[in-house]
Amino acid sequence: MDDRLEQQLAFSLEIDKEKNIFRQTHLSGGGRAENDAEHAWHMAIMAYLLKEYANEPVDIERVMLMCLIHDIVEIDAGDTYAYDDEGLKTAQAREEAAKERLFGLLPEDQQAELTALFDEFEANETPESRFAHTMDNLQPLLLNDSNDGGDWVRHGVDATHVLGRQRKSADGSEFLYKEVNERIVKKHIALGHIKDE
Amino acid sequence: MDDRLEQQLAFSLEIDKEKNIFRQTHLSGGGRAENDAEHAWHMAIMAYLLKEYANEPVDIERVMLMCLIHDIVEIDAGDTYAYDDEGLKTAQAREEAAKERLFGLLPEDQQAELTALFDEFEANETPESRFAHTMDNLQPLLLNDSNDGGDWVRHGVDATHVLGRQRKSADGSEFLYKEVNERIVKKHIALGHIKDE
Repeated sequence: MDDRLEQQLAFSLEIDKEKNIFRQTHLSGGGRAENDAEHAWHMAIMAYLLKEYANEPVDIERVMLMCLIHDIVEIDAGDTYAYDDEGLKTAQAREEAAKERLFGLLPEDQQAELTALFDEFEANETPESRFAHTMDNLQPLLLNDSNDGGDWVRHGVDATHVLGRQRKSADGSEFLYKEVNERIVKKHIALGHIKDE
Repeated sequence: MDDRLEQQLAFSLEIDKEKNIFRQTHLSGGGRAENDAEHAWHMAIMAYLLKEYANEPVDIERVMLMCLIHDIVEIDAGDTYAYDDEGLKTAQAREEAAKERLFGLLPEDQQAELTALFDEFEANETPESRFAHTMDNLQPLLLNDSNDGGDWVRHGVDATHVLGRQRKSADGSEFLYKEVNERIVKKHIALGHIKDE
């Protein structure tokens, strides 16, 4: 088998491990914890269906691909909960090393391409990356809302944290932030599922 | 909230259930059974990385989207094992009803779009759908190969069935069929993991 194909298949097999990285979000219906691969799948479909609400026109192929690969580094770095301030401080260094190893399994041109796409997502400065981040916030919000805010209750998170994170969704879609994220968060503050200091 | 957005969010939440539809394939490392959402995520990334091997040029955005949605009907219809001849006879009727209900949650234009894409996948007549089918075969093959063919052994499947299905991968990519699918299947026939009558 030629080297290029062998590298592509090695990467394809390695990313299977993303299915074993579990998040703090639970599936609808009070289900088990969600894993990173499922989360990415869900985000990519939602991005396609909701693209009309992006603040600026987006290249949806790039948004979907960004959604699909944005958590691959967690195979080595692990998942860090969005409201775990201590964990977030060290996450970046762990994710840099993971990015080198994992995308390094690919042929050089594809390593460069996926690394650039991952970096673009992290930098959050383009219309595509901003909209992908909006999906990264909205997808677990929908699940958590369907589960009576159970994930927020479990972690005892407060309104400042949740609104602080969710507000960034407006950079990708003002419309979705106002119509969905903000409404859901305010509802769960009123219900006492999110602590209001 | 406006009707259109409400429909899009209802569909987005409903498809969460695809994460509870388990397949016969097991994760690498002898892991648990894989679910449909993870499988779709994996296929979509592999399609992007391996697109250079498609027999004809493909619109990769459409291939990825096809991979992402191709199993949504199994939320209602359940998963049918690729070598379950009896189940396959009734799968189509169950999947038709599921397609109506599930895509029917969306606004009409998006229902029409996703239904057309799903039908295109099923018909398997365009370069995009053929390449998506190649991924649908190749992805579980890689996992099963990494697990010493355990899924074939468990089901006692025979070479005629496995080669019959895998050969269709050549319609999407002659190169991948020859270099990967055929080699892996022949290896596991030689090892006795697939019955050779």
